[in-house]
Amino acid sequence: MAARSEHLHTAAAFCAFSLLFCAVSSFPLAPEGKRQTKCGYESCPVTKPGLLNVHLVPHTHDDVGWLKTVDQYFYGDRNDIQHAGVQYILDSVVDQLLKNPDRRFIYVETSFFFRWWKQQGEEMRNTVRMLVNQGRLEFVNGGWCMSDEAATHYSSVIDQMTLGLRFLNETFGECGRPRVAWHIDPFGHAREHASMFAQMGYDGLFFGRVDYQDRDQRQKSLDQELLWRASDSLTPPMADLFTGILPNGYNPPEGFCWDQSCDDAPIRDDPDLEDYNVDDVVQRFLAIAHAQANVYKTNHIIMTMGSDFQYENANLWYKNLDKLILYVNRRQSNGSNVNLLYSTPSCYLQELHRANQTWALKTDDFFPYADDAHDFWTGYFTSRPALKRYERFSNALLQTCNQLEVLGGPVSRNGPFGKGDTLTMRKSMAVAQHHDAVSGTSKQHVANDYARRLATGWNTCQVVVSNSLSALSGSAAPRVYCDLLNISVCSFTEASPEFTVTIFNPLGRPVLWPVRLPVNGTQYSVSGPDGNHVDSQVVPVSGSTHDVRRGRGFAVNELVFEVQAPPLGFSSYYVSQSQEWTGTKTGPESRPKTGLTQGSLQIENKFLRATFDPDTGLLTGLMNLETKQKIDLTQNFYWYNASDGNSSDSNQPSGAYIFRPNSSTPFVISKTAKTQLIQTSVMQELRQVFSPWVSQVVRLYSGSRALELEWTIGPVPIDDDLGKEVITRLDTNIKSGGVFYTDSNGRELLRRRKDFRPTWDLKQSEPIAGNYYPINSRAFIMVRDEENQLTVVTDRSQGGSSIQNGSLEIMLHRRLLYDDVRGVAEPLNETSALFPDGLVVRGSLLLSLDPPKSAADKHRPLGQETVLQPLLSFTKGKPEASAELTFSGLQTALPPAVHLLTLSQWDSDSVLLRLEHQFQSWESQSNSQPVTINLQKLFSTLTVLGFSELNLSANQWKEDMKRFDWTPKTEKPVQKTFVDPSFWEVTLRPMEIRTFLLRVRL
Amino acid sequence: MAARSEHLHTAAAFCAFSLLFCAVSSFPLAPEGKRQTKCGYESCPVTKPGLLNVHLVPHTHDDVGWLKTVDQYFYGDRNDIQHAGVQYILDSVVDQLLKNPDRRFIYVETSFFFRWWKQQGEEMRNTVRMLVNQGRLEFVNGGWCMSDEAATHYSSVIDQMTLGLRFLNETFGECGRPRVAWHIDPFGHAREHASMFAQMGYDGLFFGRVDYQDRDQRQKSLDQELLWRASDSLTPPMADLFTGILPNGYNPPEGFCWDQSCDDAPIRDDPDLEDYNVDDVVQRFLAIAHAQANVYKTNHIIMTMGSDFQYENANLWYKNLDKLILYVNRRQSNGSNVNLLYSTPSCYLQELHRANQTWALKTDDFFPYADDAHDFWTGYFTSRPALKRYERFSNALLQTCNQLEVLGGPVSRNGPFGKGDTLTMRKSMAVAQHHDAVSGTSKQHVANDYARRLATGWNTCQVVVSNSLSALSGSAAPRVYCDLLNISVCSFTEASPEFTVTIFNPLGRPVLWPVRLPVNGTQYSVSGPDGNHVDSQVVPVSGSTHDVRRGRGFAVNELVFEVQAPPLGFSSYYVSQSQEWTGTKTGPESRPKTGLTQGSLQIENKFLRATFDPDTGLLTGLMNLETKQKIDLTQNFYWYNASDGNSSDSNQPSGAYIFRPNSSTPFVISKTAKTQLIQTSVMQELRQVFSPWVSQVVRLYSGSRALELEWTIGPVPIDDDLGKEVITRLDTNIKSGGVFYTDSNGRELLRRRKDFRPTWDLKQSEPIAGNYYPINSRAFIMVRDEENQLTVVTDRSQGGSSIQNGSLEIMLHRRLLYDDVRGVAEPLNETSALFPDGLVVRGSLLLSLDPPKSAADKHRPLGQETVLQPLLSFTKGKPEASAELTFSGLQTALPPAVHLLTLSQWDSDSVLLRLEHQFQSWESQSNSQPVTINLQKLFSTLTVLGFSELNLSANQWKEDMKRFDWTPKTEKPVQKTFVDPSFWEVTLRPMEIRTFLLRVRL
Repeated sequence: MAARSEHLHTAAAFCAFSLLFCAVSSFPLAPEGKRQTKCGYESCPVTKPGLLNVHLVPHTHDDVGWLKTVDQYFYGDRNDIQHAGVQYILDSVVDQLLKNPDRRFIYVETSFFFRWWKQQGEEMRNTVRMLVNQGRLEFVNGGWCMSDEAATHYSSVIDQMTLGLRFLNETFGECGRPRVAWHIDPFGHAREHASMFAQMGYDGLFFGRVDYQDRDQRQKSLDQELLWRASDSLTPPMADLFTGILPNGYNPPEGFCWDQSCDDAPIRDDPDLEDYNVDDVVQRFLAIAHAQANVYKTNHIIMTMGSDFQYENANLWYKNLDKLILYVNRRQSNGSNVNLLYSTPSCYLQELHRANQTWALKTDDFFPYADDAHDFWTGYFTSRPALKRYERFSNALLQTCNQLEVLGGPVSRNGPFGKGDTLTMRKSMAVAQHHDAVSGTSKQHVANDYARRLATGWNTCQVVVSNSLSALSGSAAPRVYCDLLNISVCSFTEASPEFTVTIFNPLGRPVLWPVRLPVNGTQYSVSGPDGNHVDSQVVPVSGSTHDVRRGRGFAVNELVFEVQAPPLGFSSYYVSQSQEWTGTKTGPESRPKTGLTQGSLQIENKFLRATFDPDTGLLTGLMNLETKQKIDLTQNFYWYNASDGNSSDSNQPSGAYIFRPNSSTPFVISKTAKTQLIQTSVMQELRQVFSPWVSQVVRLYSGSRALELEWTIGPVPIDDDLGKEVITRLDTNIKSGGVFYTDSNGRELLRRRKDFRPTWDLKQSEPIAGNYYPINSRAFIMVRDEENQLTVVTDRSQGGSSIQNGSLEIMLHRRLLYDDVRGVAEPLNETSALFPDGLVVRGSLLLSLDPPKSAADKHRPLGQETVLQPLLSFTKGKPEASAELTFSGLQTALPPAVHLLTLSQWDSDSVLLRLEHQFQSWESQSNSQPVTINLQKLFSTLTVLGFSELNLSANQWKEDMKRFDWTPKTEKPVQKTFVDPSFWEVTLRPMEIRTFLLRVRL
Repeated sequence: MAARSEHLHTAAAFCAFSLLFCAVSSFPLAPEGKRQTKCGYESCPVTKPGLLNVHLVPHTHDDVGWLKTVDQYFYGDRNDIQHAGVQYILDSVVDQLLKNPDRRFIYVETSFFFRWWKQQGEEMRNTVRMLVNQGRLEFVNGGWCMSDEAATHYSSVIDQMTLGLRFLNETFGECGRPRVAWHIDPFGHAREHASMFAQMGYDGLFFGRVDYQDRDQRQKSLDQELLWRASDSLTPPMADLFTGILPNGYNPPEGFCWDQSCDDAPIRDDPDLEDYNVDDVVQRFLAIAHAQANVYKTNHIIMTMGSDFQYENANLWYKNLDKLILYVNRRQSNGSNVNLLYSTPSCYLQELHRANQTWALKTDDFFPYADDAHDFWTGYFTSRPALKRYERFSNALLQTCNQLEVLGGPVSRNGPFGKGDTLTMRKSMAVAQHHDAVSGTSKQHVANDYARRLATGWNTCQVVVSNSLSALSGSAAPRVYCDLLNISVCSFTEASPEFTVTIFNPLGRPVLWPVRLPVNGTQYSVSGPDGNHVDSQVVPVSGSTHDVRRGRGFAVNELVFEVQAPPLGFSSYYVSQSQEWTGTKTGPESRPKTGLTQGSLQIENKFLRATFDPDTGLLTGLMNLETKQKIDLTQNFYWYNASDGNSSDSNQPSGAYIFRPNSSTPFVISKTAKTQLIQTSVMQELRQVFSPWVSQVVRLYSGSRALELEWTIGPVPIDDDLGKEVITRLDTNIKSGGVFYTDSNGRELLRRRKDFRPTWDLKQSEPIAGNYYPINSRAFIMVRDEENQLTVVTDRSQGGSSIQNGSLEIMLHRRLLYDDVRGVAEPLNETSALFPDGLVVRGSLLLSLDPPKSAADKHRPLGQETVLQPLLSFTKGKPEASAELTFSGLQTALPPAVHLLTLSQWDSDSVLLRLEHQFQSWESQSNSQPVTINLQKLFSTLTVLGFSELNLSANQWKEDMKRFDWTPKTEKPVQKTFVDPSFWEVTLRPMEIRTFLLRVRL
C-alpha cells in the first residue's frame, strides 16, 4: 500500500494550488495547528434537552446571478435593479460575528466568497480563519454556486462542487469542509443531486421548496424530515441522504425579518421610548415556535433567519436576534419551555441525529414543484433553450480541455500559442450551473453575461487545446476553431481549398462521428490519418440554415463525411477541393440525390429505416433493421398557448419559471410539411418545412444507430399577442398508458406516471404542466416485457411528458409575453441585435428503437457521445510530414460500462480521475455488471506512480468519509463492504463513480 | 473676583447632572486627561497647500421626526414608511471609524445621540470618547435637534441648543463642543438664528438650501461663502457669523452616493471582475471637483458625502470613499492637482479662515426660499396652525415650570403632589423645534406625536408647579389646571360654586391680565388677594365656541375679570357664585349689553376705539385715544385657491411646505358679517360671523392697549375640491407702498419690500407667495417719520405679506388637497377623531396703533406677554387662611427694556439666568439704551452667592469664547470692549442677551 500511503496525509496537502487559484491570487496553505480548533459538530452550541430548542440560523442567499450579473451582485452594482452587494455582506457579517461569540453564520456560494477573499488582507484573513476554526462562520453546501437541479448535467455539478469545495479545503482545511448540503432555492429537487451529495460526504440536505400538496401531507404525518434513498443501483447507504424540508422556505417566520430589506418592527426595549414592544415580540415568537414544533418530529426546530442577499448590514439582524434570544429565554424562569440559540444547519442536523428516530424513506424525487394549484414550475425545464445548449456544449470543451491539459503537459498552459488555462472555463461553467443560470430564469442581460463568460472560457480553453495538440501531434501549425458549425458557419473551411481537420474525442471509447463542414466548392476529396480515401458528399445548405445565419456565413454547401476518432485521442483528416463537377457522375454514390419528394418516402441506413407519409411529409414509422422491430411513429410540432394570467381559476401567467398553458390542447403548427429528400452514401435526410418558423431535418448517417431529428424553431411569432410554448410530439403505437421514463441530471432514469405521485394522493389541477418533468439527457416510453422501447436522447435539458397513450412530447422553445411573478420581472421573450424579431433555436433529438432489455446498451453510449461531442480544429493545407495524425491517451478503450468522467490536472504532479459505471443495475443484461479497471494500465503516455481515493467532490479522503447513519422507518440496510481485486485494480458497480487522485509522470 | 473665580474652572465642572440627564441615566464626568487628546481644530487632517483640497465630509441628516416619529426613526421602526434607523447608524459609524484612523464623521442631532448613548455599555462609551477626543467623531451643531428657522421662537431655540450642548459637554467635555453650526435642511434661514449661533460661540454656519436666484448670483460672484452680520443692534463682530452655502444642498455630488439608499455604481477595482471602473470614476470625480472649485474662492472645497438617514451601513460609504481617495490621489504622481481627504466642516472652515480672504457682508436674511420659479417654501410659515400655537403655548408653561422649580426649591421636583420634572417638557419642546415639527411639515401621525409629547410635558410640569406653588403659598390644596380655556372648557369652574384661581406671571414685570372662565352660573363675585372686590362680568359663550368644543365642555357663560399678577410671581383670586340674577339690575355695569348691532357701531376703552360699518359689520377704523391718532382700517377674511399643480407654467401644487395660489386675487369669504355687540365694564367685543366656518370676536378689555381679533376658522370646506389658504387682511390708509416689517424668531425686526431682495435683482415669478415672510411674533406697516404704525402681534408663527399699499395680510389656516412633492407625501388636510370634517383653529391677533418712534415701547412688552402668558391654576373654595395669596420672586420689577429670558435650575446649587435687552438699537427713544441690573438685588427669596458668565448656549465660559475673526469686503469692525460697572452689576445693551450661571442658596 505504499503508493496509497504516499497520499495519505491531511487534506492540507491538496493545497499547492499552482494550477488553479494561484493563477489569480496567492493562497496560503490550510491553517496549521487545526487540532487546537473546535469546528464542525464539536463547535455546536449547547442545547437544553427538556425544552423545545429553536435553532436560529442566520444566513444569506446569494444568487450567483439572477436579476443582476454575478459581478454586479458581488460589488453591489446596479442597485437600481435590486439592492444587493455581496462584498458588503461578508464585510458586515465578519464584523458582527466578532461582537458576540455566540453568533453564528453560514455561507454557501464559494464563487462569491472567493471574490471577497482575494481582496482581503492578511489580518482579515486570519480573523476569518479564526471564525471558521471556531465554527462561528460555517460553510454549507460550498460549491461554486447552488446549482439548478433540473437542467444541470451531473458532470458539471460535480465539477462546480469540486471547484468550490477545493477552494474551501485549500483555504480553511477540514474546518472549511461543509457537512450539510443546502439547496434552499432550486425549484424542485433531483434525486441524482441527493445521490451526489451523499457521495460527496454530506450528512444531510436541507431545502426550502417543495410541492404544496406534498408539504401538507408531510406536515400531517411529521415527515418533513426524511431519508432519501437516491439511487436504485448503488448499495445503501451509499446514496442515502437525510433530507429536511425547511419550515418557511428559507425565510424567517412572519414578522421576524430584521434585515435592512424588511419592514418588521425592531425590538424596542427602552421603556423610556415610545412603543416598547418586548412582550408583544416574545408572545408572537412563542406562538410561532409552538406551531412549528407541532409539524416536526423532535424537540429541535430550525428557523432560517435570512433571505436573498440579506445581512448586508448584519448589525440589524444580530442586534435584534441577540435581544430575541435574551427576552425569550428569560421567560424560562417563568416556566417557558422554549430555548433559543444561534445555530447552524449542521448543528441542527446533529441534534436530529442524536434524537435517534426513524425516518420516512423516499425513493422518487421532488419534481415537479408547484407552489399552488396552477403554479407548476415546469417551464424553466425548457426556458432559454439556446443558453441550455451552449452550457451543455461548453462542458464538452471543458472536459476536452482538462484532458488535453493533462495529456499535453505544462506546455499546454504556456506554449507556442500563448498562455491558456482551464480555470476560466471551469469557473464560467461553475457559474452557469447556478439555479438561475442554466435554468433560464435570469434576466436577459444576465443570461447574456453567462453566455459571455462561457465564450471567454472557450477562448482560454482553445489556447490550451492548441498548445496540447501541438505537443501531442508534433505539428506547430496554427489551429483554427469553428464554433458555429451547427449553423454551417466557418469562414476557414468556406475559403480554404485544402485543410486538415483534427477530431479530438474526449470519450474513453472510439467514436464514429459525422463531420459537416460549410464549403463553397461542390467537390472535395477527403483522406484519413492512414492516407486512405474517405467517402464524402457535398450537399446544399438548407434554407433554414440560410435564414438562421444572419450574415455570419455564406457557404452554399456542406461537405459531409464520417470520421473515426480513437479513445481519449484524435485523428486528422485531410480535405482538398477537387475540380468542379462538370455534370458527369464521378462515382456511383458521389452525388446526392435531391429533389421534392414524391411517391413513397423513406430514409434508411443499415440499422434503421424511417418512413414518411408522402402526402403530409410527416414521419409515419420507424424500424430497427437489425432487430426487425417496427413501430408506428408520427411526429409533428405544436404550440401551447401560454396563459396570460386572465383566467377564472388563477391569474398565474406562463413565464420563465412557470408553464401554464391556456388550454390542454396544443395547436398544430402545420398538418403537412414541405419536404426535400437528400440521399447520399454518407447520409440520408428529409428536410421538412412546417412553417416559416418551424423546420426540421430527419437524418440518418450511414454509420449511426440513431435517427436524428434536427429542429430549427424561431422566430416564434407573437404578432397575435399570444405567448407560445413549442413542443414536438412523438405519437406511437406503444401502449405505454401514461408511463414514461426520464433521467435525473443525465444519470439514473426515473419512472413517471401521468397524474400520479408516488408518495401522496395527487389532486391534479394542471393536466399538462402538472405532468411535465425535466428531460435532462433522455426519455423513453416502453412497456416492460414487451418489444419496443422508443428512446429520445436530447442535446440539452428540456421539459417533457407523455400526455397520451404511446406519446412523448418535448418542449423545445418558449416565447412569452408576461412575467410569471416570481421575481425575474421580465417576460421570457428572447431577442438580440442579431435576432430582433425573436430568437431562432436549433437542436437535435436522437431516436432509437430497441427492445427494453437492451435499449440502455445503445442510449447510454449515445448519451455520452451527445454530451461529450468531439472537438474539431482546423489547420491550413496538408499535415506536416512529421506530424502525428492519430493519437490515443488510453492503452485500450474502456469497457462499454465505464465512462471516463473526469481527467484533469490537480497539482503539478497529480491528476484527478473519475471513472463511472454508466449503467443502472437493472437496465442491461450485459452491462449492468461490476467491471474492473487497472489504473496502472489505463493511460498510454501517463505513468501512474500512485493513487488515493477521494470522495466524489475530491475534498476528503475516501477512507475518512464517516457519515451519520440514519434509520429508515422500513428496513435498515446492511452495510456492505466491497474490496477491490488488487492494489491497482478498481471495481466499479452499476452507477458508481470513483474518484482518484493519481500521482503521475508524463 | 472671588465669586467669579468660584466658577472659573473647566467645563467639566458642569457635569454633575443630577437634575437633568441623570434622571434617566447615569453619566460619567467629562473625560479626564483631556490634555492628551487632540480634538477640534488641532485634530484636522493635513492638507496640501499647492493643490485643490477636497474636504469629503461623511455625514447623516437625521430628522427628529418627519415621516416617522423621532422614536420610530431611532429604532428603525416603520421602515415601510421610510427606511431609517438611527440606532444602527451610530452602531455602524463607530465600527467603521475604527477601521481607518483617517475616516471622519460628524454627528448633529443630540436627541438621537442621547437615545443611543444611554443604551451603550461602558466599553462602547470609552471607544466613542476616544473617537471624539481624537476628532474622528465630531459633533456639529449639537442642539437637541436642527431647528426650524421660520416658526421657532428664539427662546425655545436657545433652550433646545442648551439642552443638546449641555449633554455633549457633560459627556465629552471640550472635545464635544461643536465649532460649527450646521443647518443644512431648514427651508430658509433666519438672521436671528445666525445671531444666536454667533453668540453661542460657533465659528461658522453651513447650510444647504438657498434661493436658486440667490445661488446663481453668488456662484458668479464667488460669494457662496460670506460674512453674515446678523444683528443691526449688537456691536460687531458679536453677531457676525461666517456662513457657507454648501455645493449640493447637503447631498454628495451626482454619481457619488454610496449609501445603501443610493444606486450609484460602487468602485469596482478588481481587474479580474467585470466592469472595472476606476478610471471612469476618477475622471468623473475630477471633473466635478474642478467645476465646483470654479464657483468657490479658495483652493479648498467641501463635499457633503451623505444625506437623510444615511450611513446605516457605513461600510458602503467608507469602503468606496477609501478607494476614491486612494485612486484620485494616486493621480497626483501623474500631475493631478486634486487632493482628497476625509474632513469635517470645522476643518474645512479652518482652512477657509487660514486663506485670509475678504468676504461679502450680508445684513438681511435668507427668506423666502425658492428652489424654482414657482416653488416658494412659504406655506410652512402657517402650516399646522394649531400645532404652532400649542408649541408656543407650551413654551410659556416650560418657562413657568423652570422658574417655579427654582423658586420652590427641591420640593418642586418631589413634593406633596408627587414627582415632577422639567426635563420631560424641555425635551418635548426641544423635539418640537425640529424643522419638520413646529414647521408643520411632518406627516399627520408625526404631528400627533409631537403634540402628544408636549402633552406629556404638561403633565410632568404641572406637578412641579403644584409642588412649588404649594411651597410658596403655604397651601396644601390640590391644584387643578384647565388647558382648554381658549375654548371655554374647564369642568372645574363649570361645576364649582366657589373656587380660587391663582395666576402665575413668568414675566419680570407685573401684568394686568384678563381672565375668562367658563361657568354655568350667571352672577359671580370675585375678590383679589387683598380681599377687595374685583369687577367681573358674565357673558354668554359665543356660538363658534359652542361649535368648536365638540362635547368637551358645556358652559353657557364666561366669567370675565381682569387680574394683576406681580413679577415672577402669583396672585390668587377668590370667585364665588352669587344668587342668581333675578331680573333686577344689580349695578350700572354689571350686566353686559348685548344685542344685534344697529346704527353706529364701535367698541372702546380708555386707550383705543374701534369703529365698524353697521351695514357690513366690518372694521372701518382704529383710533388711539391717548395719542388721538386714527387710521382707516378695514379687515376681512379671504382665501387663496391653492394650486393643484395643473397650470401651464409649473406643476407645483401648494402643500405643507409650498404656498402657491392659483390666482393672485384671493376670494372674499363674505363681504358682510353678522354681528353681535357685547359691552361690559370689563370688556367690549363685537362678535362677527362671516360664514359657518369663519367667525371673529373683536375685543377690547378695559385695561388693554391692544385691540384683540380672536378668529375662529374651520372646518375649511373642501367639498368644492379646492384647497384653501385662509388669510385675514388689514387694509389701511397708511402709505406703506409695499414696505413692511417682520420679526426674526421673535426678536429683531427686518424691513421687507414687495418684489425686492436686498442682495440681488429679483425676478419675481410668484406675486403672492414670493412676497411672503415668516411673521414669528409681529409685523407692522408704517412710514418712517410719519404718524401711524399699525403693529400686529401674533400668538403663533404665521406667514404674511403686504401686497397692497397700506395692507397687511396674515395667513391663518391652510387646508390642501395635494402633496407638494417635497417628501412628506401627504396633503396638508388636517382632520382628527374630534374633527373628522376638518380642523377648527382659533387664535388672536393683537393690534396696536402708535407713532413709529414709540411703537416698540408697546409691542415689545405686548409680545412678551403674548409669549409668556400667565399660568392659571385652581383650588377648591376659599384659600386657606394661612395661605399666601400673592408672591413675587423679584425684589422689584425689571426695567422696561429688560426681559427675564431664562431662570432655570442647573445643578443643585446653581441656576441658569438669562437677561435680555428686548429693544433694537433704533426702535425706542426711551428704551433703546443700555440698562444695568444688579444680580445680587434681583431675587427676593434666592440668595446669589456668586456667578460666572457663559456664552448664550451655556456650554462655554464667556471668557473662553474665542471665535475666528473674519474680514468683510467692506470695513472691518473695531472690536469694542464693554466693562460692567461693578462686580454685581451687569449692563445690557440693545438686543443683548447675557447668560449667567448663578450659585444660589434658597
